[in-house]
Amino acid sequence: MKKITVYDTTLRDGAQAEGISFSASGKLRVAKRLDEFGVDYIEGGYAGSNEKDMRFFREIRKEHLKHAKIVAFGNTRRAKSRVTADPWAKSLVQAQTPVVCVVGKTWLLHVRDVLRTTPRENLAMIADTVRFLKDAGREVFFDAEHFFDGYREDAAYAMDALAAAVEAGADLVVLCDSNGGCLTQEVGDTVRRVAAATRTPLGFHGHNDLGLAVANTLEAVRAGVVQVQGTLNGYGERCGNADLCSVVPTLQLKMGCRCVRDNQLAGLRALSLFVDDTANVRHDQRAPYVGQSAFTHKGGTHVDAVRKNPRSYEHMKPQLVGNDRRTLVSELSGGSSVLFKAIELGMGHQESSKGAGEILKALKSLEGKGYSFESADASFRILIQKVLKKHKSFFDLEGFRVIVEKRGHDQPCLSEATIKVRVKGEIEQTVAEGDGPVNALDGALRKALVRFYPEIAQVALTDFQVSILDPEEATAATTRVLIESGDGKDTWRTIGVSENIIEASWQGLVDSVEYKLFQEEEKARKRKSRRKAAGREGRLR
Amino acid sequence: MKKITVYDTTLRDGAQAEGISFSASGKLRVAKRLDEFGVDYIEGGYAGSNEKDMRFFREIRKEHLKHAKIVAFGNTRRAKSRVTADPWAKSLVQAQTPVVCVVGKTWLLHVRDVLRTTPRENLAMIADTVRFLKDAGREVFFDAEHFFDGYREDAAYAMDALAAAVEAGADLVVLCDSNGGCLTQEVGDTVRRVAAATRTPLGFHGHNDLGLAVANTLEAVRAGVVQVQGTLNGYGERCGNADLCSVVPTLQLKMGCRCVRDNQLAGLRALSLFVDDTANVRHDQRAPYVGQSAFTHKGGTHVDAVRKNPRSYEHMKPQLVGNDRRTLVSELSGGSSVLFKAIELGMGHQESSKGAGEILKALKSLEGKGYSFESADASFRILIQKVLKKHKSFFDLEGFRVIVEKRGHDQPCLSEATIKVRVKGEIEQTVAEGDGPVNALDGALRKALVRFYPEIAQVALTDFQVSILDPEEATAATTRVLIESGDGKDTWRTIGVSENIIEASWQGLVDSVEYKLFQEEEKARKRKSRRKAAGREGRLR
Repeated sequence: MKKITVYDTTLRDGAQAEGISFSASGKLRVAKRLDEFGVDYIEGGYAGSNEKDMRFFREIRKEHLKHAKIVAFGNTRRAKSRVTADPWAKSLVQAQTPVVCVVGKTWLLHVRDVLRTTPRENLAMIADTVRFLKDAGREVFFDAEHFFDGYREDAAYAMDALAAAVEAGADLVVLCDSNGGCLTQEVGDTVRRVAAATRTPLGFHGHNDLGLAVANTLEAVRAGVVQVQGTLNGYGERCGNADLCSVVPTLQLKMGCRCVRDNQLAGLRALSLFVDDTANVRHDQRAPYVGQSAFTHKGGTHVDAVRKNPRSYEHMKPQLVGNDRRTLVSELSGGSSVLFKAIELGMGHQESSKGAGEILKALKSLEGKGYSFESADASFRILIQKVLKKHKSFFDLEGFRVIVEKRGHDQPCLSEATIKVRVKGEIEQTVAEGDGPVNALDGALRKALVRFYPEIAQVALTDFQVSILDPEEATAATTRVLIESGDGKDTWRTIGVSENIIEASWQGLVDSVEYKLFQEEEKARKRKSRRKAAGREGRLR
Repeated sequence: MKKITVYDTTLRDGAQAEGISFSASGKLRVAKRLDEFGVDYIEGGYAGSNEKDMRFFREIRKEHLKHAKIVAFGNTRRAKSRVTADPWAKSLVQAQTPVVCVVGKTWLLHVRDVLRTTPRENLAMIADTVRFLKDAGREVFFDAEHFFDGYREDAAYAMDALAAAVEAGADLVVLCDSNGGCLTQEVGDTVRRVAAATRTPLGFHGHNDLGLAVANTLEAVRAGVVQVQGTLNGYGERCGNADLCSVVPTLQLKMGCRCVRDNQLAGLRALSLFVDDTANVRHDQRAPYVGQSAFTHKGGTHVDAVRKNPRSYEHMKPQLVGNDRRTLVSELSGGSSVLFKAIELGMGHQESSKGAGEILKALKSLEGKGYSFESADASFRILIQKVLKKHKSFFDLEGFRVIVEKRGHDQPCLSEATIKVRVKGEIEQTVAEGDGPVNALDGALRKALVRFYPEIAQVALTDFQVSILDPEEATAATTRVLIESGDGKDTWRTIGVSENIIEASWQGLVDSVEYKLFQEEEKARKRKSRRKAAGREGRLR
């Protein structure tokens, strides 16, 4: 198996994406997870660009990474400066990382219009900086920025730039499609020519402006590079970088290369979600391999076929990358996929196909109102119970009132909720303040219920999403709220739909609490049944 | 230039994606926009699968499409049934479309495990159905499902299946990578072999399970197919289909093919956003060509370079696909990119670099609290004015109170907002009910201001997004609200951040109103200045 090294630049190039911003502690957490996953190099930041990145280099030295080497990224020296006195070259040394990656120009357009220097001075800048960093004892990668554009316009000069780095001692040369405008065929042809001309190992760094970053990276490997650069979830400037969550599994599972250990690969989806959470980015549910939908079947015929043979609509076992098969319920489903879903939820064996028909009818009617149960399993389960008249209410609402008040534009906003519920025949009235109206309402509901159901003290809301279904109606639009709740062990998702965000949140809160209480009852029933069984076994001995 | 026909399946395969659901009227609107854009074929739905799709086929016949042909998608006849009596074959005819696309099996695994019939009967099912539809006068495409998997396992049988369709009169054969697990090289090799073996035109239909759907489609064109199938924004089962928003511009701008007219291509981004809106899907800001970030520059060095020469970090002119260059402000920016942004917003020429430093400081402090001005230009503009002490308040808040009340679990939720503001020295107090608390507050604010500023009657909120910044804090978490407003001509985006969703919404509402009023003042000032100039010119004559 051919070893391909994995170079992650999530913390540098990834952080240049719109909407991505890592805190200093977030960068440390991500680096540790990347190390556990088994990447070979972690580019931690831009040396000298900002204080946060330099702090990261200082702090990561205290961590004991198992495998990965930390890389500082930075520029060649400035034009017409001495490298030993150059602030950029010096900050690359000050980062005190075992590896540095020096970015230099190979495209004359950049030399002329951006650096505004001569072709000759640019070659000296590359050579001086690489030599300076080799003299400082570093492993040095030369990042040949815009190599493919440069090669297309003036191949000889682009090769001179590589030669300057190689002759100065660069350990590896990274060929970059920095503008992401290169077709796959051209990447392959160009890498092959360069590989034939040098014995220095090559890497590839691609951007996704044509939607080809992954394809180009795989083709570069076929053409001879031994290192792939990219980011988790494809974060990066403009359309992003090559997504390592796609590149690594394809290299390893489809192309006979070795990147990480198999048990590490099985942590891919968890890593992807962790990085999204840390960067505060919404998970791309459609992402290859790691997305929530990657092995999710919705069309009725697909659901049916996958039940007969998973290979019919799955190109591999989802578990290899830590993902799972899911099936959805929607108007496209026939009765059979609703039943299949019910079975998946552990309740189908009790249902007849007549039940499935009734569930389907209720489902279609609610979908018409804007509900979407595709990712609200807990609410779907409650719906099934309601349709089959097996639903048990744990409490009844008599009423609630939420007040949000602000006095003066620089005063804080106060939120107060009062609630009146009937539980086990008793009326309970509570009031709670909160950081916002939903928080206050959630607080009042818990206060009212906890005396009767102490287990709901474990439940915390872990995510809260709001979508506007008919945005042309503006704030009067139908609002869909998705709530994720957790109790430290399980997580579950519920939904509410209303023109009123408080009412929609209320529905989601009620489903969340009822789901938890129902699960607890189920568990208690099973424990009791097991105890009974154990007792009987005891008598048999 | 080689003509490549574009076959859109957004309304059929796209609708099989998790979270995608088109209303019946939404399908009609999308079809009309696809026609205007210039696609050749619009697959409208699955004949016989559900009533909504059959209704679409009925209603689209009344529309006068300029160019596109409507296609009904459907199955071959069932095993051991007569095609003339088969409900699936019949519903394809009942759809009354000029073109039909019949999906058939070419992979023995599917014949055996999913259809549960013999290889021979499957060939008869294909031949019978194609012939039946040709006899009914249709243009018939044969959709060779799982062709690449089938060819890999039993090439002879896969070719037999194609031959059955071709001999029965199929006008075109679509080679499908239905599981999306095929590498680009394999797609190219296989298409070349099939193209050498048949004179029937070929198409390609790919899925994105390896992140290669676009690359595979382009490679199939290089290898000889004349039709590309895909969906807008890459919607589709699991990881989605080949994204036509990437495929079409690359074919046309980079590979010398002709798909649509140049002026149609310039409508691509608008089409992409329209389809997202209709399907109620969040726009993928990182999408190649059409994403909001596709030509957006964030890193300070990139912003600087693009200012010197756009080609330095742009592989093409954004206007060719109806997109625009944007630059962002963030902690990665130096003072120069804040200034550049200010110039972009039409106010930089007034600012000194000292002003830029102060703006940057304020920006970093607010970003630390969770604000993100990357896509809230209007709030950023107001921030600049505040920092430079050029901000003018159009009103002062004395206070507001929002009440949301519900009596009984099946009663509606009532929302009422009262507001007290001071405008031009007068106190105004208003109350409004609304469909939800933000709607009520918005209503009360407008009521209070419209007497003083009648132009705000034109403003409508067109989008409302809520993000939870620290989800582990649940409903007590910091909430970021992004509001998009429009007045029929322009749209602008504002932001609010608070632990309280009402307070965050309030900030966004206030910025929205102030931005509009500020713009109106600017316009009035310019009109006045133009009138003055015209007056002077008059005197010169």
